Amino acid sequence: MDKIISTLEKINPIDSSLLESTQIRLDNLTKPKGSLGRLEEFAKRIVAITGKRNPSLAKKVIITIAGDHGITEEGVSAYPSEVTPQMVYNFLRGGAGVNVLARHVGAEVVVVDMGVAVELASHPDLIVRKIAMGTKNFAKGPAMSREQAIKAIETGIEITEQIINEKKVDIIGTGEMGIGNTTPSSAITAVFTNKPVQEVTGRGTGIDNETYARKISVIQKAIELNKPNPKDPIDVLAKVGGFEIGGLVGVTLAGAANKIPVVIDGFISSVAGLIAVELKSDVKDYIFAAHASVEIGHKALLDRMQLKPILDLNMRLGEGTGAALAMGLIDAGVKILNEMASFEEAGVSREK
Amino acid sequence: MDKIISTLEKINPIDSSLLESTQIRLDNLTKPKGSLGRLEEFAKRIVAITGKRNPSLAKKVIITIAGDHGITEEGVSAYPSEVTPQMVYNFLRGGAGVNVLARHVGAEVVVVDMGVAVELASHPDLIVRKIAMGTKNFAKGPAMSREQAIKAIETGIEITEQIINEKKVDIIGTGEMGIGNTTPSSAITAVFTNKPVQEVTGRGTGIDNETYARKISVIQKAIELNKPNPKDPIDVLAKVGGFEIGGLVGVTLAGAANKIPVVIDGFISSVAGLIAVELKSDVKDYIFAAHASVEIGHKALLDRMQLKPILDLNMRLGEGTGAALAMGLIDAGVKILNEMASFEEAGVSREK
Repeated sequence: MDKIISTLEKINPIDSSLLESTQIRLDNLTKPKGSLGRLEEFAKRIVAITGKRNPSLAKKVIITIAGDHGITEEGVSAYPSEVTPQMVYNFLRGGAGVNVLARHVGAEVVVVDMGVAVELASHPDLIVRKIAMGTKNFAKGPAMSREQAIKAIETGIEITEQIINEKKVDIIGTGEMGIGNTTPSSAITAVFTNKPVQEVTGRGTGIDNETYARKISVIQKAIELNKPNPKDPIDVLAKVGGFEIGGLVGVTLAGAANKIPVVIDGFISSVAGLIAVELKSDVKDYIFAAHASVEIGHKALLDRMQLKPILDLNMRLGEGTGAALAMGLIDAGVKILNEMASFEEAGVSREK
Repeated sequence: MDKIISTLEKINPIDSSLLESTQIRLDNLTKPKGSLGRLEEFAKRIVAITGKRNPSLAKKVIITIAGDHGITEEGVSAYPSEVTPQMVYNFLRGGAGVNVLARHVGAEVVVVDMGVAVELASHPDLIVRKIAMGTKNFAKGPAMSREQAIKAIETGIEITEQIINEKKVDIIGTGEMGIGNTTPSSAITAVFTNKPVQEVTGRGTGIDNETYARKISVIQKAIELNKPNPKDPIDVLAKVGGFEIGGLVGVTLAGAANKIPVVIDGFISSVAGLIAVELKSDVKDYIFAAHASVEIGHKALLDRMQLKPILDLNMRLGEGTGAALAMGLIDAGVKILNEMASFEEAGVSREK
């Protein structure tokens, strides 16, 4: 728990005076005031997060963490669990959605195994830090022990700090792979937002009506059985969470502690983001919400964090795909600040 | 008028069977069906527009056309008309918003003067095809003659076809610069959508309440005076339009006629898009709406064309800034189709 505590202590609110001074600089560029809308918001917040007057987001890294879920025994997913390791290999070969979109925006994808239920073949680009061979079935008891939940978060922090140091990262995106992981995500969302399970549970990879009804029932019973305590985010993670979710909590905390912006992807990454924010509310200043997921629970999560999604493209793939696209737009905002001419430089007249 | 007629004759509906066959290919890639949402829609439509199985959008060009407006005599803008030529020089030096965002997505900006009210200094990257030294004040009579309106559209077609041939363009974005040009744009929107002027008139670059009330009144009176006929799009352009708007009608038509996708930027570019669609409804198959502008008339235009904006970032700068960002996202969709692994290639199990 020491690593979590010391990381939380390093996280401070961003300097709001930098938001204001950067807006003044943006207002001096050759455009009507505020006319680049959210691009200006992105630029301001990146300055306030990094403390740099002219930040660069050249080095973009997406950390995609994989884990398996015992809850799949209850028949809650359209895909078999064997797809989790198969997709990890797909990430490593560069053939998955996140690889394509990361290449498109100039981001690197780092793949981490924190709980895939089989031993994966070693690969130079795969980081293996398994907490266990998948979580336990939380329909029958906690998904993991409290110690494992702490270890998952701390492992996420360690991996991220190593990546930040080695690669001189400017911006981090979060992503995940884990067959069944919308089920723990909906459970966690219901616990923190206190909304009925059916209002925060969607169809994940695309399940039929019968499976959807079962998924809702499984989550309702699991919350009754395990009684996760929303005042204790680590308890929630342990009882109805997942290892990749815990890992991404650590990624998000490490970003905030190191003044690196974190772009959270969709539903599952936002669950991890919310756990991080529940651990320390200042974390939300460092988070950008990449997109509005099709998963119906996503909006409740973003509302609780007071975050507005950047994109709304009807996506629901996860992996970090939305984070990749959003990073490109945040970078565009920063370039506006760094590269646009001022009224004086361009000899352009101001408002009458 | 011959050039317009021959261009309209070349425009055909896209082949909807290609939309269906491309969806089958997308469904075979390693992701749940439809989970990349609108990226899949972009990929399908680019295939259907180009007729190419694996299209590339590598060569992106934004055509930004400038023109001045006699209506500024009525005091409808927050900026003086001298800003139009000043901003053209800013485009040519690479310091404007559209330059920054075009560089960000790998697009080239082509700057065209079709009616700036002063003679611009010659520049190797500036195309000068003035129809006149600005439009006339349409509060007192038509903005231009019918012959000038036709010439503006035909000039847009000629310039675009030359650029397509010289640069081997894969996708075109539209952009504009013209102090006062939200006033003709709102007038045109009111004429085609038959909505009250105040419902389709916004604050442009940022005018105060008094100027805003005057702008609405000027447009209402100009429509009464000039009686533009919504059944005759060229009449509407002539009576309450602008030269850059006419030029962009031509750009849009030339894109459609040459099977090149056209990304229309914000409010003013969408007015040009709508005139093109009113001339031939099949044009809309070739258009992508870049973003939802803050200008309140924009939604009515997109609704009439049945287009859904790609981005919603509270932008209202014009120039082609939104088109640049949207081109990046459309390209991302095409890369998904071209670069993602199939279930067979990646050895990933399908749905149960």
